[in-house]
Amino acid sequence: MANRLGKSTVVFNNKPAIIGYGSVVGAKEMEGPLSSEFDTHDKDSRFGEESYEKAESRMQKIAVETALRKCSKSESDIDVIFAGDLLNQCVGSSFGLRGMGIPFCGVYGACSTMTLGLILAGLCVDSGAANCAAAVTSSHFCSAERQYRYPLEYGSVRPQSSQWTVTGSGASIVSITEGKPYIDKATFGKIVDLGVKDANNMGAAMAPSAASTLIEFFNDTSTTPDDYDRIFTGDLGRVGTDLLYILTEQNGYNIREKHDDCGLLIFDRKSQDVHAGGSGCGCSASVLNSYVFHRFESGIFKNILFMSTGALLSPTSTMQGESIPGISHLVNIRI
Amino acid sequence: MANRLGKSTVVFNNKPAIIGYGSVVGAKEMEGPLSSEFDTHDKDSRFGEESYEKAESRMQKIAVETALRKCSKSESDIDVIFAGDLLNQCVGSSFGLRGMGIPFCGVYGACSTMTLGLILAGLCVDSGAANCAAAVTSSHFCSAERQYRYPLEYGSVRPQSSQWTVTGSGASIVSITEGKPYIDKATFGKIVDLGVKDANNMGAAMAPSAASTLIEFFNDTSTTPDDYDRIFTGDLGRVGTDLLYILTEQNGYNIREKHDDCGLLIFDRKSQDVHAGGSGCGCSASVLNSYVFHRFESGIFKNILFMSTGALLSPTSTMQGESIPGISHLVNIRI
Repeated sequence: MANRLGKSTVVFNNKPAIIGYGSVVGAKEMEGPLSSEFDTHDKDSRFGEESYEKAESRMQKIAVETALRKCSKSESDIDVIFAGDLLNQCVGSSFGLRGMGIPFCGVYGACSTMTLGLILAGLCVDSGAANCAAAVTSSHFCSAERQYRYPLEYGSVRPQSSQWTVTGSGASIVSITEGKPYIDKATFGKIVDLGVKDANNMGAAMAPSAASTLIEFFNDTSTTPDDYDRIFTGDLGRVGTDLLYILTEQNGYNIREKHDDCGLLIFDRKSQDVHAGGSGCGCSASVLNSYVFHRFESGIFKNILFMSTGALLSPTSTMQGESIPGISHLVNIRI
Repeated sequence: MANRLGKSTVVFNNKPAIIGYGSVVGAKEMEGPLSSEFDTHDKDSRFGEESYEKAESRMQKIAVETALRKCSKSESDIDVIFAGDLLNQCVGSSFGLRGMGIPFCGVYGACSTMTLGLILAGLCVDSGAANCAAAVTSSHFCSAERQYRYPLEYGSVRPQSSQWTVTGSGASIVSITEGKPYIDKATFGKIVDLGVKDANNMGAAMAPSAASTLIEFFNDTSTTPDDYDRIFTGDLGRVGTDLLYILTEQNGYNIREKHDDCGLLIFDRKSQDVHAGGSGCGCSASVLNSYVFHRFESGIFKNILFMSTGALLSPTSTMQGESIPGISHLVNIRI
């Protein structure tokens, strides 16, 4: 049973816990600072498949299987899975999971998908609609580049504000169990569009929505950044992170000492040529389902905020001159 | 608070009711048999916009505004909206709703989206996570044709098994209120893929998933078709409907006398040249939020099953030789 707190925040009363989690990444992510955190990787990012889209589907399947194995559950234990990705018609998810026989809810939140799915999985478990639910998402640098930007072979030059789509996937299994990190509260984000039109500057497009959701959560819960061990955003990168600091400070909240962005954690910007940082659904998904949950296990984290951040554009909307709407969903995870 | 029944069915115990609903359609739909049912239409299907994608976004906004007006609610009363569509990255929804300030959850179920969104809105209200939630989806013949098939100007010949994407949108507002039709039970569908590869025969690709979900619901609830006033599918069309009859009969359920397909209701196949019938997210959405709920109001319906049916393909998956996974979600609506 849930209840509402303030204007936009939901409190889960039955402590839906993350009982299992899995992460999968590509070759470049394994060269980054978090390489020791991930469960699985592939050395050429093809995962044995003949197309990058199929490789992305394969990653989702591996992430779910890994998460299930780590909590000794099987596919038939999962009452519903929330899954989505960046590919047109979310085929990364539907083809990746079609053989698993799990009731399937497709979600689309662009790079906010991990948190969106986790909230809905938590809601199902908290309410009794599911005994066990799952959330998974993915992105792949090569499938994203050719869909959103240019063919890889074209070798286009990327501006410094651009981000590098993470090749990765992360899955969480949610059920009610004592002693595991649980979703205590959640805030569904609103679409925020301040008119940013540069598709090579997603951080700037997403930062206002991250600020909006975070400030709404602080207001609803009468808490401040000091109340949390850490505050994560999904993939604002360097440009978006700096904008988030400005926007939250304008509203009286200084998060600089508490904040990490998954897009800045996953790559070393100095040596890995990723410009403003990592991005993609797989960025926050793979960091949450490795680095973050590992730190709950080791006792470093007891109470965090985790926000995935999404840019709700399409190549068609950009070609039609539209600006880029952003959205950020938030979960408060405690143990 | 919800509980589970059988293997896959969820029972809502707080009677989340559809307190408002709205429908919007294009010109061709207004020439069909249900013309008197719809709230709003546009005579040239452009809705005053300069692109078909923007027209689709406009339809979603109108559908939500219409549904809100009919239950005397405003945008600020809605705690969360579930929205999705067929366009790449679901831009029909994100651009249609971005100005409304409603917490936004993107969903993707292809043509199953209306029922998927309605279940999740019902779940939020039933559990207390929302006092008032909404679900909306849309499709547009012209934006779908150019994205999935050919430019309209090319004038390609369509085979008889093909369906005509409905230009339309439907929105439902869900809250707890006595005396309105409510979601009593729901079944999340599983992905079913029997290997159909013909993207001009969506009915055949979706029918196995519809049969799977329906049979699972009958088994879980120990009910039969006789227990319901009517059983609706979203957009199986003529080919898919006939296959559904065969598949359900193989499992001991004869639904012929109880069944209607929204894709067969919305157009007159003899005079409207739509081949196997209507399709698209907007098909089941516009029929549910007009024809179906009108019949609850007039007392004709007291207990129905409503299933939207989706085909989870993309042009890329088809080009890569993939078959077409289907999915069908089900709600049992009563008054």
